[in-house]
Amino acid sequence: MTQLSQLDAYFTAHRDEHLNEMKEFLAIPSISSLSEHKEDMIIAANHLATLLKKAGMENIQVRDTAGHPVVTADWLHADDQPTVLVYGHYDVQPVDPIELWHSEPFKPEIRDNIMYGRGASDDKGQVFMHVKVLEAMLQSPEKLPVNVKVLFEGEEEIGSVHLDQFIIDHKEELKADLVVISDTGLYAPGKPAVCYALRGLTGVQINVQGPKGDLHSGIYGGGVQNPIHAIATLLASFHDEHGTIQVEGFYDDVRDLTNEERAAFAELDFNEDDMKAEAGVSELFGEQGFTYLEQTWARPTLEVNGVFGGFSGEGIKTVLPAKAGAKITCRLVPDQDPVIIVDLLRKHIETHKPAGVEVEITEFDKGKPFITPMDHPLIQAAGESYETQYDEKTAYIRAGGSIPIVSTFDEILQAPVILMGFGLSTENFHAPNEHFHLDNFDKGLRVVSDYFTRIKK
Amino acid sequence: MTQLSQLDAYFTAHRDEHLNEMKEFLAIPSISSLSEHKEDMIIAANHLATLLKKAGMENIQVRDTAGHPVVTADWLHADDQPTVLVYGHYDVQPVDPIELWHSEPFKPEIRDNIMYGRGASDDKGQVFMHVKVLEAMLQSPEKLPVNVKVLFEGEEEIGSVHLDQFIIDHKEELKADLVVISDTGLYAPGKPAVCYALRGLTGVQINVQGPKGDLHSGIYGGGVQNPIHAIATLLASFHDEHGTIQVEGFYDDVRDLTNEERAAFAELDFNEDDMKAEAGVSELFGEQGFTYLEQTWARPTLEVNGVFGGFSGEGIKTVLPAKAGAKITCRLVPDQDPVIIVDLLRKHIETHKPAGVEVEITEFDKGKPFITPMDHPLIQAAGESYETQYDEKTAYIRAGGSIPIVSTFDEILQAPVILMGFGLSTENFHAPNEHFHLDNFDKGLRVVSDYFTRIKK
Repeated sequence: MTQLSQLDAYFTAHRDEHLNEMKEFLAIPSISSLSEHKEDMIIAANHLATLLKKAGMENIQVRDTAGHPVVTADWLHADDQPTVLVYGHYDVQPVDPIELWHSEPFKPEIRDNIMYGRGASDDKGQVFMHVKVLEAMLQSPEKLPVNVKVLFEGEEEIGSVHLDQFIIDHKEELKADLVVISDTGLYAPGKPAVCYALRGLTGVQINVQGPKGDLHSGIYGGGVQNPIHAIATLLASFHDEHGTIQVEGFYDDVRDLTNEERAAFAELDFNEDDMKAEAGVSELFGEQGFTYLEQTWARPTLEVNGVFGGFSGEGIKTVLPAKAGAKITCRLVPDQDPVIIVDLLRKHIETHKPAGVEVEITEFDKGKPFITPMDHPLIQAAGESYETQYDEKTAYIRAGGSIPIVSTFDEILQAPVILMGFGLSTENFHAPNEHFHLDNFDKGLRVVSDYFTRIKK
Repeated sequence: MTQLSQLDAYFTAHRDEHLNEMKEFLAIPSISSLSEHKEDMIIAANHLATLLKKAGMENIQVRDTAGHPVVTADWLHADDQPTVLVYGHYDVQPVDPIELWHSEPFKPEIRDNIMYGRGASDDKGQVFMHVKVLEAMLQSPEKLPVNVKVLFEGEEEIGSVHLDQFIIDHKEELKADLVVISDTGLYAPGKPAVCYALRGLTGVQINVQGPKGDLHSGIYGGGVQNPIHAIATLLASFHDEHGTIQVEGFYDDVRDLTNEERAAFAELDFNEDDMKAEAGVSELFGEQGFTYLEQTWARPTLEVNGVFGGFSGEGIKTVLPAKAGAKITCRLVPDQDPVIIVDLLRKHIETHKPAGVEVEITEFDKGKPFITPMDHPLIQAAGESYETQYDEKTAYIRAGGSIPIVSTFDEILQAPVILMGFGLSTENFHAPNEHFHLDNFDKGLRVVSDYFTRIKK
């Protein structure tokens, strides 16, 4: 009987016990954004440390940061085998609007083999899954086939504010050959996915100043530049009518999709009508020459997130306003550099600035895009591990969003990041009635066990 | 001794008495917009009726409307001479911020031959001036050289809400050969002006609907049209880079300035640096081929008064918003028709609507532009009357703003409107420390007397 068969039996035998333990963990209201839960964050971190201890991990530490604690542990007895850093987060989103929950967010309960409770899917349920994999392996005679370090933070839902610095400060201690994160989802129910690329983020705010104060549009209108006309002209200059970005050099560093990637995306089940319904639009709209998945996963964007100026109340006010402005963010893809992109934006704005107004630009935070190439052996191995448990072929996907901490791992630790998620996009993370399908928990335990075994040299 | 010389002597002899009476009238806090002053509005209307009675006017009536009263009177014994309708308003603006007043707004006082108090210039002081002209003429043996009707309203500062209907309902009673209004100003201190044209007004609100709800810009960005991009594209399509309006047919009905008008404007003392300082801009900006005065007086505009969409708080929110919108008003010049212009706007928006969004248009109120041609004898006569009292030549000017009631007189009574103002733009109407230079009050009494005499057949 192989170790994997033994583990399978172990997971089956201990299932009830594990689900009860998961409930205990989910019951701690570890809401990182609310100061009244500061003590609960410490309780959750210590609870996690206890679970790691029970699992047989070593060097378990609950470590203070300027914010909520970081929990670390390791098991490093696999000699020259690869070292895996497992990252996850034990903090959760607030629960409002509480009245929409069918059961209490911090009294987890199972209905129809689905665990309901805040954090069930994002991310305490998936963190717990990893701890149980470690426990199962460490109780078996063969122990872990690879070296493992864990890093669980309590600030993911508030932007991982102190984790970048923690990783920089403990770069040597956290050194690993790969980073495994289970904080994303399957492609669809029953269809596993390895996400190998994320978009980065950068942005600017444009403030346009016209006259010193608001002017009467009758007295001055026609002789003074209107800051709203100026901001509209600037914003309209960013795209052509098909949505292609017109900022000179913007696409220069974009890594082209490989034929294999395009083929992989094209094979995925994608229904345009379903997507229109999901997004709530009557038609999709994007850069020509690319499919919807290519547009949203592998092409950069320049999105105006907000525009403001003049009077926006009810009715009419004949004002020629003093100010107008807009907030812009760009989603970036490999190998775009946020610093270069902001420079190009500045140049574009400078070049297209209409006469008669002053324009001021302020910069937002920057996050680099991330990619571990689709054909990387550690990515392909993850896909194969999924396929031992799921009947469908693994989807190799990208995601359009940004997970800043992934770029940090990529950049500081210089290790490939493997996003192996077991959630579903319909599981209401960040919303009432968050849940986690327990068949994916069951499969996840086995997929991760297989993966650790598979990447052994 | 002519009647005008007698009147001159009369005004001089009664000056102190008149100024005391003006103070009594200004002391009534006739703020039309504040319901706690409803009773004061009635007191002011009755006070005005008493002044008209003392002046020797006939058929004096304080007439109820759905809002504040209208005061009417007449003197119609000049046989086949022209009939003048004198219009003015006895309501005033609120006084906030009260702490910025150097003397109490409703305890008028004279300092350096300037009357300080709310309504001194706009418009109770000028209404009072007209009443004193009537009084002076009616006490003289020759009486009035023309027939006179007066119409003083109490709702000008709140948009003359009930006056349009009053004029329509009493069209026959108000019938006149000309309408004289003293509610505007001189061109500059010592430089008289007759304003012979005003711009009209119309406008629309554009609401752009994209997705049903706000979307995550990472997940959907690149594949869904952003309503802010759409509104920016629409707004940018309205003008070229020089500010010329690009709506097809927009300028078709614009009556060209005559050579005489352009020459008259060019002769006026206009200092670009002073205007930049006044408007608070570093450069002026407008349609090419026209001077600043031509741009703001005699050319139509399309001004975006407000734009809104997405997130406008501090920092960043990576949203692809569901909605965006803008409020637009056009200042119109003779012979543009607001109804036609709104039609052209609708067509333009329809033609330029970007893909992937729905656009809804709602219309604002419409006001027609007004003009009594500069060379009209009644306009020229007004200029000549000014020149009997002022050392400077009369400026024949237009104004960029809109006075909706002027269009109503023009349209319903079909009588030329003569705007003979004696205020100054620096006299803080609508602001703390409103005042009225009494040398212009003195001259105004004589100018209006001269005008009534001059237009006699």
